[in-house]
Amino acid sequence: MNLETREAWTDVTALPADPRVAAASVDVAGALELRWVEEPMLSRYHPGWLRMHDYSNPQEEALRDASDIAPVLWDAAGLKEPPSFQGAAILEDDALLEDWLEALAAFGIARLREVPCQPGMVVRVAERIGPVRTSNFGRIFDVRVRAGPGSNAYTDKALTPHTDLPTREYQPGLQFLHCLEASPMGGRAVMVDGFRVAELIAAQDPEAYKALCTIPWPMTNRALDSDYRWRAPVISLGDEGGVKELRVAPFLRAPLAGAFEEVEEAYRALRVFFATVAEPALQLVFDYRPGDLIAMDNRRLLHGREAYDAAAGERWLQGCYGECEELQSRLRVLARRRRAASA
Amino acid sequence: MNLETREAWTDVTALPADPRVAAASVDVAGALELRWVEEPMLSRYHPGWLRMHDYSNPQEEALRDASDIAPVLWDAAGLKEPPSFQGAAILEDDALLEDWLEALAAFGIARLREVPCQPGMVVRVAERIGPVRTSNFGRIFDVRVRAGPGSNAYTDKALTPHTDLPTREYQPGLQFLHCLEASPMGGRAVMVDGFRVAELIAAQDPEAYKALCTIPWPMTNRALDSDYRWRAPVISLGDEGGVKELRVAPFLRAPLAGAFEEVEEAYRALRVFFATVAEPALQLVFDYRPGDLIAMDNRRLLHGREAYDAAAGERWLQGCYGECEELQSRLRVLARRRRAASA
Repeated sequence: MNLETREAWTDVTALPADPRVAAASVDVAGALELRWVEEPMLSRYHPGWLRMHDYSNPQEEALRDASDIAPVLWDAAGLKEPPSFQGAAILEDDALLEDWLEALAAFGIARLREVPCQPGMVVRVAERIGPVRTSNFGRIFDVRVRAGPGSNAYTDKALTPHTDLPTREYQPGLQFLHCLEASPMGGRAVMVDGFRVAELIAAQDPEAYKALCTIPWPMTNRALDSDYRWRAPVISLGDEGGVKELRVAPFLRAPLAGAFEEVEEAYRALRVFFATVAEPALQLVFDYRPGDLIAMDNRRLLHGREAYDAAAGERWLQGCYGECEELQSRLRVLARRRRAASA
Repeated sequence: MNLETREAWTDVTALPADPRVAAASVDVAGALELRWVEEPMLSRYHPGWLRMHDYSNPQEEALRDASDIAPVLWDAAGLKEPPSFQGAAILEDDALLEDWLEALAAFGIARLREVPCQPGMVVRVAERIGPVRTSNFGRIFDVRVRAGPGSNAYTDKALTPHTDLPTREYQPGLQFLHCLEASPMGGRAVMVDGFRVAELIAAQDPEAYKALCTIPWPMTNRALDSDYRWRAPVISLGDEGGVKELRVAPFLRAPLAGAFEEVEEAYRALRVFFATVAEPALQLVFDYRPGDLIAMDNRRLLHGREAYDAAAGERWLQGCYGECEELQSRLRVLARRRRAASA
């Protein structure tokens, strides 16, 4: 162990392949002490460490992390508004930050109110979690009507709920949207819990669910200075069979490229998927006020918007991306500090 | 189709579930024209498009991308030096940039020489490909001896070849290292083609290969302001069974947490892995000169270094991360522009 970096130095090839114990004892503090036949070293194992890594425990036990938060699935009845928190305060206050992030981890969405309406503020808030992810749309992107839009997002048209950057191998895990100017006419946010959509389809139409989990859809996004392509099923499952992420955006979908026999089922399943997403009973629909800042899990939630009338008034959201693993890291650090402070 | 954004508007649920063809014809240009029973719309399909998306073609054919470059596996005999290019020139010249990036895509490593020794230059070079990825180590990190190092990298000790940030769900795809000051004594780079290591182990010890591909190793990296954890096998296979990425760093490995029956095989396989990595016949070993800038595929190559003597002279590398998907996008754009220029 390098005591400064708290990282290991020992290389596994430098140790004997089959180390043999020469002597074992338990010291007064309950630690296990081992001496080895081939090595002069004394190994000492703390009893808490041994319990934590006891292979007779179920694997989940050994891996459980106090700061891991299970997703709470929702629909329109279960979540009438995004969980909301006081925005300016979380910039300074770690306890409020933790409340906001726990809601984000559980629901995949959480809102801050009254975040100062300054350009760039969205990054200051996002960096309370961790590094921001720069994309071809920049470190910060402005969602507003613009001349020569490079994306349907930069118009005043409605957007079907979707994930952002599904054309990348790594979809960004977090998306932040800060409302600097709200449109007087329309432009309400439409959000759907993709995990809940997946759960419903799995129960109601197992064939469609299977197609959504297995048939890869090509996605492309070509612009003057970029050309992104990726191919994956709409629903990706993790090693334990649970839904890991969704990946879907109607306006970036490329022609299906797979087995001919799968074509009809692929389209049927996609229709089932978007018909489910369009059910009002599943949609969280809300207005943006200037100062609102929405954080969401971009690999779980589908986000869209209603059309608005740009002629009637400007709508301006500033956005940036982050990663779920930074959220997990921040939650662990906040929990660690809270425990240290209360000890 | 939105003609400004070149993205689709049509929602699949807005179309009939089983569209029926009312009339079909081929126009003078060879395009297929369809009229539909349920829709007044005329659909017109270019013959080239139809050929590209013909389901009777093998799937690979339909998906082949002219700018996709197959990896060329190497060992010490096959690659005695990193493929090297003139550094300052690629900042301006697209043809030279493309040469460098094609070598990077094929070999997983490519070097630029005589890149001006200015701090921050590594980002200027990396941004010729695409956005840089910021991590907890910053947008740029300085690999040099420092007081209170937060990583073994920031000492003058040897580092076993490893991938960077294996504690993240998303390992960075590209790493850039720019030598600003070279140590007079030691500190040579040691790089190994992880795809070649995997291929060798698969042939020589299929049991070890299976364990490396299936038994997840926990990785952790805890610091004052971060706490990253991830769990994955050393070798991850893609959907088609080929090696997708490697993930391994001895100093970030946490205790195994899995089935007791797998423990001995997991350690045996890990020893086989690192013994293979340590074979001089597989190692590309080279000196850094000031101005050298190495780009490498962090999910394919394992990179390490020999120890050096910080007392004898400073060694200073500046690094940053990027993504393989940005490399692919840049290669497609460069190829597209080259074809347009020669047309």
